[in-house]
Amino acid sequence: MNPMPASSRAASIEYAIRDVVVPATALEEQGHEIIKLNIGDPIAYPGLPTPQHMVDAYSKALQDGNNGYSPSYGLPALREAIAADERGKGWAAKKDDVYVCHGVTEALQILFAAVLEDGAKILAPGPHYPPYMAYPQMYGASTVEYRLDGDRGWQIDFDDIEAKMDKDVRMLVLINPNNPCGSVMGREGIERMISLLEQYPNCLLVADEIYDGLDYTGTHVSAAACSNTVPVVTLNGVSKVYYAPGWRLGYMALHDPTNRLPLVKDALERLLRSRLCPSTPAQHGYLAGLTGDRKWMVSYAEKVQQQRDYCINRIQQIEGIELQAPGGAFYMFARLTDDRWADDDKSFVLSLLHEEHVLLVHGSGFSPEFGSGHVRIVFLADMGVLKDAFDRIERFLSRHRTAA
Amino acid sequence: MNPMPASSRAASIEYAIRDVVVPATALEEQGHEIIKLNIGDPIAYPGLPTPQHMVDAYSKALQDGNNGYSPSYGLPALREAIAADERGKGWAAKKDDVYVCHGVTEALQILFAAVLEDGAKILAPGPHYPPYMAYPQMYGASTVEYRLDGDRGWQIDFDDIEAKMDKDVRMLVLINPNNPCGSVMGREGIERMISLLEQYPNCLLVADEIYDGLDYTGTHVSAAACSNTVPVVTLNGVSKVYYAPGWRLGYMALHDPTNRLPLVKDALERLLRSRLCPSTPAQHGYLAGLTGDRKWMVSYAEKVQQQRDYCINRIQQIEGIELQAPGGAFYMFARLTDDRWADDDKSFVLSLLHEEHVLLVHGSGFSPEFGSGHVRIVFLADMGVLKDAFDRIERFLSRHRTAA
Repeated sequence: MNPMPASSRAASIEYAIRDVVVPATALEEQGHEIIKLNIGDPIAYPGLPTPQHMVDAYSKALQDGNNGYSPSYGLPALREAIAADERGKGWAAKKDDVYVCHGVTEALQILFAAVLEDGAKILAPGPHYPPYMAYPQMYGASTVEYRLDGDRGWQIDFDDIEAKMDKDVRMLVLINPNNPCGSVMGREGIERMISLLEQYPNCLLVADEIYDGLDYTGTHVSAAACSNTVPVVTLNGVSKVYYAPGWRLGYMALHDPTNRLPLVKDALERLLRSRLCPSTPAQHGYLAGLTGDRKWMVSYAEKVQQQRDYCINRIQQIEGIELQAPGGAFYMFARLTDDRWADDDKSFVLSLLHEEHVLLVHGSGFSPEFGSGHVRIVFLADMGVLKDAFDRIERFLSRHRTAA
Repeated sequence: MNPMPASSRAASIEYAIRDVVVPATALEEQGHEIIKLNIGDPIAYPGLPTPQHMVDAYSKALQDGNNGYSPSYGLPALREAIAADERGKGWAAKKDDVYVCHGVTEALQILFAAVLEDGAKILAPGPHYPPYMAYPQMYGASTVEYRLDGDRGWQIDFDDIEAKMDKDVRMLVLINPNNPCGSVMGREGIERMISLLEQYPNCLLVADEIYDGLDYTGTHVSAAACSNTVPVVTLNGVSKVYYAPGWRLGYMALHDPTNRLPLVKDALERLLRSRLCPSTPAQHGYLAGLTGDRKWMVSYAEKVQQQRDYCINRIQQIEGIELQAPGGAFYMFARLTDDRWADDDKSFVLSLLHEEHVLLVHGSGFSPEFGSGHVRIVFLADMGVLKDAFDRIERFLSRHRTAA
């Protein structure tokens, strides 16, 4: 008998960050040790553990019996703490407009399902975090990439956005700081986006700010805080800034300054109820993070920033790779200067993996159009590991250099 | 300006079990105390806590720093423990065919997304757990209900299944024990389903066995264990049998005796990778449940069964409500015998809520076609609470009885 068919939707899904793990796992099963700089998971590296007071609050919730379902939109106390945190970023967030999800991933799935129809479009940065391309097509919509300028610090090309906006675009996505590029957008750029969206009354601004506490430029600002006219959906969570990605908790917060979202809110709430709830005990852990002292963040950020500076320095000295230095997050998106990799960055990643046992992610996995010829490097590992990784990258590039 | 439109998909989503919570919460905010027999959450009631050794293992995982992402398909040790558990139910489950999800809810979303296309159908029992109707339409497919016979213990009407099967049906769903009816299907019925599916090579048997440890008949059997010919996807998790629904952990396990599922497996794995992973520390808690001693289950089951027996007894003595006694799970699906509620069970539920502060779920929320005129009652509360609830139900029915 023939194999049972799968949906065409699923067959086209790709998620480069985890797809490259498949060959790496095969090598590990053969006994090789792999230096993994592929995944944005601080817990995968020593020195950046989830803060103890958050772990303790989570454990206590378990021990206190908080093991049943929570309300579908999240625990009221957590929703209020998130709203208070967002108010601290400069806009009038309300508890009832905050929805707690199983990570930003689930928030995105629900947001796309609530808004997108056949033929709708979203406009997302190229390069972007892969689900912004993978998920809209699951709902009959499509993703159009707007250009981040790889020669000017991956800043947004507004002419490209303006050329691509039309009435079918239901969401304009800002990932700030950007994954995979690490670029940070300040107030002026956000205001330009909002001013553009005033002409498109059915388009939401989706502000993915999951890395907002990891800003080394001092210029990051909440997009919702910049809008008095356009609805903004802010995405954030416990994974990155609070160093607990395995807890799987994120949120979306609606800012609706002109009361445009009653139907969208109803749709979101229906979808949220149908999927029951996020983890109950984990919500107590996140709550402790939001309400507790945040002094610990300083030393964590210093460590990550030192590692960033080391990587920037190494890349400047290696022939065959160059960089627009990242201003935020824990990613850098480096260009492979040898033409041989320009359209074949996945071969670079797989060859480096097999020959030197260093795992990066190919840039085309973040954008077929704007990411090829690049690699994403995560700078969460210790200095010693990073030194070893760059030594290997240097050796690899030297060995594979095209003769001039 | 007009409100921004939501998707038609989302506007039609309903989840009766949580939709009725909205008016109940409003009453609570006015200071009323509500007896909630609406939700299948053992932790919401005293006396059935999550077992301590599971809570301790989960806490230990947190304290040991297991707070990063897990592999997308689940921790290898948990996948193996689940496979071993399924092997104990009589079929050759393999670790690599087990996928850990954020509850059975996420497993269903991923399964539907992997298989269903525009125009596809799933055949699900009527009455059924609501997501079986809510989610397929999100992927352009539709759900057809096959009849459970409300006069014969909610057993399956096979003639109805045979009349409704065709080549567009991609999944035949068995919920065993059934939610909301509590009916249990034995080996003979499952074999009849499998024999029928042998004629439909593109149709999966989906066996939702989340209540399989709550069988008071002694006749429950794993559907996968009955099939040598037809692919079976078994769904189960930590929520019900292990009394930890707020942890949000479930799984799907593929049984593919004739090697029909390579494309479906690839599609599932792509979708699983794209959504990162289930909660990492929670997986350690579930692992402890699967590998630890299960003697505790005896006293838990006895308590639930005593409460079931009490409810059956009360219903037999109340005029206006009658029952096909449930053989499993912790639900009963009772018929309102007064004609006034036959097509208006939601009014019954809302009036009972407002007048007597008892919350049930209307049967039409589980099946517009086969569930109306019924209510679902959860029998997880203590005997004292159940007594109070049935006293109020009795009073309500007596007050609203139509004059003969």
